[in-house]
Amino acid sequence: MNTFERLEANVRSYCRSFPDVFVRAKGAQLFSQTGGAFVDFFAGAGALNYGHNNDYIKGRLIQYLEEDGISHGLDMYTSAKEAFLQTFESLILAPRALDYKVQFCGPTGANAVEAALKLARKVKGRSGIFAFMGGFHGMSLGALSATSNLFHREAAGVALHDVTFMPFPCGGPGADFDTIRYIDSILEDDHSGVSKPAAIIVETIQAEGGLNFAPVEWLKQLRALCDKHDILLIVDDIQVGCGRVGPFFSFEPAEIVPDLVVLSKSISGFGLPMSLVLFRRELDAWRPGEHTGTFRGNQLAFVGAKAALEYREEVLLEAETLRKGAWVERFLQEEIAPLSDRIAIRGAGLLWGVDVSAAGPHELSKGIATRCYELGLVIERVGRHDNVLKIMPPLTISDAELETGCRILKQAVSESLEKLGALEPALV
Amino acid sequence: MNTFERLEANVRSYCRSFPDVFVRAKGAQLFSQTGGAFVDFFAGAGALNYGHNNDYIKGRLIQYLEEDGISHGLDMYTSAKEAFLQTFESLILAPRALDYKVQFCGPTGANAVEAALKLARKVKGRSGIFAFMGGFHGMSLGALSATSNLFHREAAGVALHDVTFMPFPCGGPGADFDTIRYIDSILEDDHSGVSKPAAIIVETIQAEGGLNFAPVEWLKQLRALCDKHDILLIVDDIQVGCGRVGPFFSFEPAEIVPDLVVLSKSISGFGLPMSLVLFRRELDAWRPGEHTGTFRGNQLAFVGAKAALEYREEVLLEAETLRKGAWVERFLQEEIAPLSDRIAIRGAGLLWGVDVSAAGPHELSKGIATRCYELGLVIERVGRHDNVLKIMPPLTISDAELETGCRILKQAVSESLEKLGALEPALV
Amino acid sequence: MNTFERLEANVRSYCRSFPDVFVRAKGAQLFSQTGGAFVDFFAGAGALNYGHNNDYIKGRLIQYLEEDGISHGLDMYTSAKEAFLQTFESLILAPRALDYKVQFCGPTGANAVEAALKLARKVKGRSGIFAFMGGFHGMSLGALSATSNLFHREAAGVALHDVTFMPFPCGGPGADFDTIRYIDSILEDDHSGVSKPAAIIVETIQAEGGLNFAPVEWLKQLRALCDKHDILLIVDDIQVGCGRVGPFFSFEPAEIVPDLVVLSKSISGFGLPMSLVLFRRELDAWRPGEHTGTFRGNQLAFVGAKAALEYREEVLLEAETLRKGAWVERFLQEEIAPLSDRIAIRGAGLLWGVDVSAAGPHELSKGIATRCYELGLVIERVGRHDNVLKIMPPLTISDAELETGCRILKQAVSESLEKLGALEPALV
Amino acid sequence: MNTFERLEANVRSYCRSFPDVFVRAKGAQLFSQTGGAFVDFFAGAGALNYGHNNDYIKGRLIQYLEEDGISHGLDMYTSAKEAFLQTFESLILAPRALDYKVQFCGPTGANAVEAALKLARKVKGRSGIFAFMGGFHGMSLGALSATSNLFHREAAGVALHDVTFMPFPCGGPGADFDTIRYIDSILEDDHSGVSKPAAIIVETIQAEGGLNFAPVEWLKQLRALCDKHDILLIVDDIQVGCGRVGPFFSFEPAEIVPDLVVLSKSISGFGLPMSLVLFRRELDAWRPGEHTGTFRGNQLAFVGAKAALEYREEVLLEAETLRKGAWVERFLQEEIAPLSDRIAIRGAGLLWGVDVSAAGPHELSKGIATRCYELGLVIERVGRHDNVLKIMPPLTISDAELETGCRILKQAVSESLEKLGALEPALV
Repeated sequence: MNTFERLEANVRSYCRSFPDVFVRAKGAQLFSQTGGAFVDFFAGAGALNYGHNNDYIKGRLIQYLEEDGISHGLDMYTSAKEAFLQTFESLILAPRALDYKVQFCGPTGANAVEAALKLARKVKGRSGIFAFMGGFHGMSLGALSATSNLFHREAAGVALHDVTFMPFPCGGPGADFDTIRYIDSILEDDHSGVSKPAAIIVETIQAEGGLNFAPVEWLKQLRALCDKHDILLIVDDIQVGCGRVGPFFSFEPAEIVPDLVVLSKSISGFGLPMSLVLFRRELDAWRPGEHTGTFRGNQLAFVGAKAALEYREEVLLEAETLRKGAWVERFLQEEIAPLSDRIAIRGAGLLWGVDVSAAGPHELSKGIATRCYELGLVIERVGRHDNVLKIMPPLTISDAELETGCRILKQAVSESLEKLGALEPALV
Repeated sequence: MNTFERLEANVRSYCRSFPDVFVRAKGAQLFSQTGGAFVDFFAGAGALNYGHNNDYIKGRLIQYLEEDGISHGLDMYTSAKEAFLQTFESLILAPRALDYKVQFCGPTGANAVEAALKLARKVKGRSGIFAFMGGFHGMSLGALSATSNLFHREAAGVALHDVTFMPFPCGGPGADFDTIRYIDSILEDDHSGVSKPAAIIVETIQAEGGLNFAPVEWLKQLRALCDKHDILLIVDDIQVGCGRVGPFFSFEPAEIVPDLVVLSKSISGFGLPMSLVLFRRELDAWRPGEHTGTFRGNQLAFVGAKAALEYREEVLLEAETLRKGAWVERFLQEEIAPLSDRIAIRGAGLLWGVDVSAAGPHELSKGIATRCYELGLVIERVGRHDNVLKIMPPLTISDAELETGCRILKQAVSESLEKLGALEPALV
Repeated sequence: MNTFERLEANVRSYCRSFPDVFVRAKGAQLFSQTGGAFVDFFAGAGALNYGHNNDYIKGRLIQYLEEDGISHGLDMYTSAKEAFLQTFESLILAPRALDYKVQFCGPTGANAVEAALKLARKVKGRSGIFAFMGGFHGMSLGALSATSNLFHREAAGVALHDVTFMPFPCGGPGADFDTIRYIDSILEDDHSGVSKPAAIIVETIQAEGGLNFAPVEWLKQLRALCDKHDILLIVDDIQVGCGRVGPFFSFEPAEIVPDLVVLSKSISGFGLPMSLVLFRRELDAWRPGEHTGTFRGNQLAFVGAKAALEYREEVLLEAETLRKGAWVERFLQEEIAPLSDRIAIRGAGLLWGVDVSAAGPHELSKGIATRCYELGLVIERVGRHDNVLKIMPPLTISDAELETGCRILKQAVSESLEKLGALEPALV
Repeated sequence: MNTFERLEANVRSYCRSFPDVFVRAKGAQLFSQTGGAFVDFFAGAGALNYGHNNDYIKGRLIQYLEEDGISHGLDMYTSAKEAFLQTFESLILAPRALDYKVQFCGPTGANAVEAALKLARKVKGRSGIFAFMGGFHGMSLGALSATSNLFHREAAGVALHDVTFMPFPCGGPGADFDTIRYIDSILEDDHSGVSKPAAIIVETIQAEGGLNFAPVEWLKQLRALCDKHDILLIVDDIQVGCGRVGPFFSFEPAEIVPDLVVLSKSISGFGLPMSLVLFRRELDAWRPGEHTGTFRGNQLAFVGAKAALEYREEVLLEAETLRKGAWVERFLQEEIAPLSDRIAIRGAGLLWGVDVSAAGPHELSKGIATRCYELGLVIERVGRHDNVLKIMPPLTISDAELETGCRILKQAVSESLEKLGALEPALV
């Protein structure tokens, strides 16, 4: 029995899909103890948009360490935090005319969700929250209450309250009717059994939920619905923000301004724990110390975050992401979609899904991912029954690596369908 | 208006007590933008037991970064995690004959508490938890449910359930009767209104709660009580573990073995976000992925954590902590206690409290801390009405720095009492 | 200030619509202290299906009292309960081949709902319940949790949990899509955020909710849905059972067998407090005394209940109800509907609604009811914004009284529309 | 299998202890189908303080029925309710200078508790309630939340929230320390984990809980505690009010005025379902219809209630109760206590307990009650493990019946102890 099996809790998970011991990583590649090299289409579940060990960022971190910069600062004022705030303001907020204040939370996405829900409840004086079926917001009890996956909910060991789930426009119940109209009718009805919530929390794209992309028009309607009923709109941009689909915030294409935004994962630029809540200035009803956390002042993360925002501009990351995304889309449409008319392709920027739910039994996606790994590609499965292969490489991936990864995926899909006897007849 | 006031949420807190902008830190000293130097009796709320920018640990971190080690690994296997686990086993678990498994959580203490409560509920199939009045376990809803401070609880915005508060043997309600007997009588009584809990969560020393030290005998009785009623005992050692009072775990003097232990703060050795849940091997009922979190694989923290455990041995940190603690005790008893017979002194290792609750109005402690800061000492206040000055320097503080800090504290106490006209007559 | 205003709580309600002091009642007529006589289209909110002071039943009650029968018996065995059980079995259960057991609860509908929900949760080991928007089940916290009216819910003063509201096929949100399919898709989806409930509780006709009649086909589908997902089906027949729409149980036309049925209101025949839970024999998982209540043995009610069941047969009440109902329907369609094409008529048996929600402002229905009262008719308003006039006379009402009441209603509607200038042009 | 076993739910309970079928009752005697006669020390669990079929009250009921008085009136004004209110004011409220308003609830004690808790929460804007270990308040979810018996709580099938249990001064946990001081210290402490409640609900004498009599001094302190912390005091006088221990309200000897009082059981005088909430006039924050219930207008009960209040005066019931109580006390002390020094006797008025918890195994009390029943006495067991025989006859019991019952009890105790070999040596 190896060290991990002997000492680490059974709760460990990804190591079961990718069972090597990894020792080094650079850009979009992971290297194992036994010398294996893998293209990374997983990117730390979205925490590594700038690639592993991005040299621009790394240089800053090492310099900061060498200069004995503050490593841990709680919520004291530090030069590292100041520099991050100024950069975030000048490069992100100001150009988008967003008058947000910034809250540093315990450095996990879940903690930022907890803070956002607390603040919304406090400001509105209502306890309820609407969240969406298919949505994922974290594992601590407050965030878990808004997470729809029953496997995770049942692990709570207690009843989860104060959140009502609404149908999302795609990917689950409600896909066949007008969900905005339904939610509106519930809010209008004083016999609906459901009180007006403080806030609606939404992912513009449900990543864990299976790459369900809310239509831009739907997001606009949701914003209007919140305005109509005096409800705060919280966008959880933890996985699909920080440029994953091109623009820094995923909601930019919808031209909406959320009341609160939750960021984490790639915000530090280097995979270091960090999270933020952004909210409209007039919502800042916090009293000092009402929501605390020892590591809300992870200074190294602030240093990385500032560097990442600069790097983003320097390499024109948004344009590059869209360019590479267009290539991926073409590849998926031309090379993978034809393998079966039961495969669905969807995506944006550098976030793409190959949905095989209709192409075979639930084991199919697992077989594909396993074969990918054998062939040197790390790729995750998401959504109902894990039926969607999620393509989410570092945004900095080279064109060659991107092609290598996609070709591996094609081979794995093709071989897996062949085993099932489910390849398109023309291809057999 | 400065950058922080303009952009950072009002929830920020410590910056109001220590309003400089800090730029650099080393050992037990903090340096501000304007050139000020401060002795640090705060130590990142316990996250910096090994001092700021400990060179032993820092060297390892820089080396790991330079070698492009994995920075972010979720729960994949990595060489950094493997090395940490092996070191933790050989230096901590094995010598103490603790057959624990290790869970890596979202890297905050609150998240580790959430995980521990989930696992306890799952294993026992009961939803209730007993926690103690005066206790502090974190801000996310599950952890907050077990946190006794009403200021924090009311910020939840929803009712907090599934936790029943019991009297602690000191510092609050129950200090005048046998609390173990009372808890036992509740558990024995089928008309108590309170169902048997899955677990009892306890801090051996309530740090935020005001430096309330549970007697060793009481801890033994608590362990026996849990055994008698088939209840799991969780020790939250986030603030007072990692050698703060001498031994690595705070419960070692009581010679008890908790069923679960929660660690965070100083575990990474460098103030980097990290947390652990330890539990008896036979309690590992987790299913893969039941409790997840993007940053549960903060590899840099693992590197720091391994280095810290080695460093601890190398410099005989436990013995040093006790030696310095004895000096602090003598100083407090001889130099500060005589200032007023209404001052209470208590502590262990390098965690000491000067309780002025009986010596003047609630503003007294604030006045003392403010004066300390003016004189170059960062010191926090804790407990009911923040009436206890908490002496918690890095364990690596030099004797000279320790004396400087203590003398500043003495001066501030003395001046503040003088203002009140409350100095002992003999000293006036 | 009169006695009531001086001494009775402000919570009193119907007395505000019908402000006379009533002294006597017979059949379908109420008589006031000042000599007024009123036709009763309210029937004790459904508790007086057999009319006020029904002589057949009254004779039995007086005889029982005179013989010193047990008046109060908790759940001891009594001859009165025995006789009721035997009669209920022979006249109600056996002819319908219903193998139900009978639970006597605290003698209110709410208490029977509480008992039914408890038993369902116990049997299935699940805490959740699905209830419907528009539904009404009572005011105690367990029943209130399943009641959709926000006015009542907000009076709870605590959060109401463990019930999820689903759209009803008519009268509120969901009326424009396939609600059964939606509920099914939620139950099928492991990312819906909603766990499988122990039971679904439904009124076949939402009476308080606005006279929303679930289609027979929908009820059949609901039964099948419950079977498919192993969920118990509870029919709350408190208001529309006991022959209100013809057959003893309202669900008979749908040819479904609920797992549990809740009865109250008219079950005692005389307006005396009584309630029952019926459930399939194999669901009887109760342990002795798990759900108690001092008045679950209201013996006078049992005597009345037995007499009522006999009387029902004797006067062919079911057929009479349908005959009178047909007359009411014709009257409403021919005399009232033509007054405005914005008036909706719906009903069955002797339960009819005149829905004026589309015919004018929310005050319209109040004006109509007030005018009815002035003209000698007691009639209640129900539904969203109380917009539906509810025709619910004693089933024993004479044809002449029925016509009198209906003509008063017509006059009141006509006059009220005229005031609004909203009468159909042809009628002006 | 008899009718009951075939048709009635397993939840039935008292019929298992008293398995005859009862047909008739008068005063303090019950008569069975097979001709048995039993002295009744149970009195409908306190609902029959005026005896079975009290002729004074019965005459009024029959007359009212014969005159076609309103039988069911919801909350409309009726002459029966008016007469009751006037009588209640003149005979009960005015002589005690109580400026209470009266709320008629769904006619069960549980429903009155639900209403009282709702009103308290509404008035104070707080959700929490303090209740006492050992207390019993009913079975619907709101009342059950305040009921301490775990057997009943676990039958809820959901978590019960928003009530915190405090130690009662006798009978359970807390009996060995100053409970008022403990509660006060919790309310004073902002780190107690327990928010200030809207109300404290208390039985002055816990009847179901084992006949635990709160000392008069403790009740005074509780009243003062509530005043000090701006908390409402609710006295649940359902079982021990209506003259059970002499005065109409059980709290009169303590000379306190509760903010709310809950009455039920014997209030109707005849065992008919009825309940009341009384509260200080200025607390009447109800909006019309916020707490409703079909049977809150059980007119026959109002008629009985008025008659009972008159009867009470006419026969000097309070003095008679005290006289008979003194006789019972003497009998218990002189005839039963000497049987074993492990028997505890306690009581007041006509409510007495013989506590055999220390005299033998838990089966002892059951054996005694069973033997009583064989000998012609109906007597209930209450408290932890049902160890207390509860003597609670109609207040109208004749001296001869009282003696008969007491002698049967003595014989049963004596025989049962003899079987155990536990009789006092002197008596063997």
